[in-house]
Amino acid sequence: MNPIAAMDDTIVALATPQGVGAIAVIRLSGNEAISIVNEVFKGRDLSKQESHTIHFGTIRDGEKILDEVLVSLFIAPKSFTKENVVEISTHGSPFIIKQMIQLFLRKGARLARAGEFTKRAFMNGQFDLAQAEAVADLIHSDSEAAHAAAMNQMRGGFSAEIAALREQLIHFASMIELELDFSEEDVEFADRQQLQGLVDRLQEVIKKLVDSFDLGNVIKNGVPTVIAGKPNAGKSTLLNALLNEEKAIVSDIAGTTRDFIEDEIHLEGLSFRFIDTAGLRETEDKVEAIGVERTREKMKQAAVIIYLFDLAEERLEDIQAEVAKLQEGTIPFIKVGNKMDKAKPEILEALQQEEGWIFISAGQKENLEELKDQLVSKVNMQEIKAGNTVVTNARHYESLIRTQQALDNVTNAIVAQIPGDLMAMDIREALHYLGEISGTVTTDDLLENIFSKFCIGK
Amino acid sequence: MNPIAAMDDTIVALATPQGVGAIAVIRLSGNEAISIVNEVFKGRDLSKQESHTIHFGTIRDGEKILDEVLVSLFIAPKSFTKENVVEISTHGSPFIIKQMIQLFLRKGARLARAGEFTKRAFMNGQFDLAQAEAVADLIHSDSEAAHAAAMNQMRGGFSAEIAALREQLIHFASMIELELDFSEEDVEFADRQQLQGLVDRLQEVIKKLVDSFDLGNVIKNGVPTVIAGKPNAGKSTLLNALLNEEKAIVSDIAGTTRDFIEDEIHLEGLSFRFIDTAGLRETEDKVEAIGVERTREKMKQAAVIIYLFDLAEERLEDIQAEVAKLQEGTIPFIKVGNKMDKAKPEILEALQQEEGWIFISAGQKENLEELKDQLVSKVNMQEIKAGNTVVTNARHYESLIRTQQALDNVTNAIVAQIPGDLMAMDIREALHYLGEISGTVTTDDLLENIFSKFCIGK
Repeated sequence: MNPIAAMDDTIVALATPQGVGAIAVIRLSGNEAISIVNEVFKGRDLSKQESHTIHFGTIRDGEKILDEVLVSLFIAPKSFTKENVVEISTHGSPFIIKQMIQLFLRKGARLARAGEFTKRAFMNGQFDLAQAEAVADLIHSDSEAAHAAAMNQMRGGFSAEIAALREQLIHFASMIELELDFSEEDVEFADRQQLQGLVDRLQEVIKKLVDSFDLGNVIKNGVPTVIAGKPNAGKSTLLNALLNEEKAIVSDIAGTTRDFIEDEIHLEGLSFRFIDTAGLRETEDKVEAIGVERTREKMKQAAVIIYLFDLAEERLEDIQAEVAKLQEGTIPFIKVGNKMDKAKPEILEALQQEEGWIFISAGQKENLEELKDQLVSKVNMQEIKAGNTVVTNARHYESLIRTQQALDNVTNAIVAQIPGDLMAMDIREALHYLGEISGTVTTDDLLENIFSKFCIGK
Repeated sequence: MNPIAAMDDTIVALATPQGVGAIAVIRLSGNEAISIVNEVFKGRDLSKQESHTIHFGTIRDGEKILDEVLVSLFIAPKSFTKENVVEISTHGSPFIIKQMIQLFLRKGARLARAGEFTKRAFMNGQFDLAQAEAVADLIHSDSEAAHAAAMNQMRGGFSAEIAALREQLIHFASMIELELDFSEEDVEFADRQQLQGLVDRLQEVIKKLVDSFDLGNVIKNGVPTVIAGKPNAGKSTLLNALLNEEKAIVSDIAGTTRDFIEDEIHLEGLSFRFIDTAGLRETEDKVEAIGVERTREKMKQAAVIIYLFDLAEERLEDIQAEVAKLQEGTIPFIKVGNKMDKAKPEILEALQQEEGWIFISAGQKENLEELKDQLVSKVNMQEIKAGNTVVTNARHYESLIRTQQALDNVTNAIVAQIPGDLMAMDIREALHYLGEISGTVTTDDLLENIFSKFCIGK
């Protein structure tokens, strides 16, 4: 498939969500977008209007009036896709929308595929691939942090860093290639030590980006959180207390209520996703051994662990032994003494001497705020707050890892004093992988894979 | 509540359906609409732009970028509400929408109530009440006929007829009032015979409108259809055959698939709603007597009856006796001979001599098209096709009935030679009821009642 050839036609789709609403927006893009609409629009002659203007009129199928509409004109290249774009604001009736789209199909448009508007914007150089992908992330962001990361990426923050890296690599490559041209004269333009310094600096930046993916992943998908502890420590009581509070603060602005995601809470712009809550809910009554075994398994997947101790029942030695075990692991955890209202005084007193304990009563909903603060503090928010680029996309992460490997090969080549032409290959490989992120290097499969995940109309 | 005073503020709401989509539109209306948006918009100075223009930029909450948006400006009175209106096209993320609406609330807008944009349009004289109500009907129309009726009403077809009626009545009233002014001189300006002629002409028009409500009701709510017949005549087989075909033709244009309404089919732009299908599905096995009794009850609610006869089992005399009974009723019915593939030849032959029979096989799905054509022919579509005004709104229907009654009183007064001042009261009453339709006469309760049924953002 030649992607350029496929872009000659004019595409149409509903751009607003499905369902009944006050208004809906139907979007067309392509050479014929304006002429197709003009043919069925009664109002001003759209072919004679300026870009970025709005026109009231009716859309007619023969004699039949389909709707009174507002038509917004965007004349190429001053549009999202850089093609002619027409947006038609209709009454939000599925019946009208269907009639109107069918009319445009009859007049020569074709139904847009998923993500095709954004794909055209990319193909026409509106933005690079990482920015295009950020559009989808932005639409699906449901927390402050995910929104901030997607916005930064959409506005080119990440792309600029990748572009800077590529530029340095290209400079590097050109020096090597120059050397190759004069290889018979045995000239060494590219000072090997200087080259190594450049590779090291690149690796440093790439490593930072690769490392940011841990954070990016929790930003995008929520922080996987486990509530652990012995049976009857109050795990499900705590879970329900946290989730009920979340439910209560869900906004009531019509149309903005996010689907309530079970077992997820939002704190300081991050979402915390409780994992194995089904197990949690059913294991309370099970034999202790099984419950604990299961919890251990789940704890491995967590980014943070809330470990509950029953201050009313457990013995101090047992508690301290358990804490010691937790400290052997690498996952951040919060030591929580539950049932503080029924705590054995000597245990409470002893633990109060130790660092890092939080005492709550899940049943009484006491001190949950302190627990939440602790939860937030376990995630490294500094990167987000500083506005640093955070890699949130698994595809980008993989390309960065491959770039790292290619650059490692360059380093090895320098150390082993391998000839320039082999080194040039490794550098070109690194350039290739970096280029995949921004879309400087693409394949149809890659594009298909990315844009087919978009919604229709985007 | 003074509705004018309540309109000084600026309202905001999401105008597109809830959920994730490519884009969403947030709408503001009111004196401060432009200045509120301008305060948080980074791009051109919106206060200096012309009406019906579109501007790209970002919406910012302090330093934080909420989204890249397109802002559409409509400067009073050139807008839907005749106030300043700003429409903001954002990425379709519920998170962004919520953040943005909350930002506008902080900047001085308030959340719009249901239907408040349309109410303002009405209050500011954009259209009359019947037209405003048609906006809601249009959005919810799901058949060609309902769409056509709502479109005609929204574009003022109905309002024009009511206005013409009112004008004639006002002329009438003014003659009577003039007579009253000179009553001491015993002058009779209003020729009684001439008056009666006018009342008769008015009554004729109103009767036509009143009568059209039967049609209007089925246009808006579907044609209540009953499939009747003896047990085992194949009623549920026929129902399922018709409904399965309907399911198969539901469109697959993303976003336009109407919710599949169980037990409803669409033919020639009308919807036919099968009633008592639950009963139908369970009675096949029941004692005959109960089943038939029940069907009789339901048949009374039908606008059209499909009566099934089992050509393989029933006796000719029984069939003819049943048809005779049906003919005593007032509801249009279709005589359908089912199981034509297994029909007793002598019965089939005999019935083929009679008028109006359709022979089908529900099980083999044979000849269903002819049955559908018959179904459509039972509804008087002429009124719709001729583009005549059809009353679809129960409120309008009631007002028209009351107008009729008031005019009846006028006729009685003329006949009984009752003094002009009493007659004037009846005429004023008729004017009042007509005025309620167009909203020339309104109360807060009436408006509240009408607009609260709209969706938010309309």
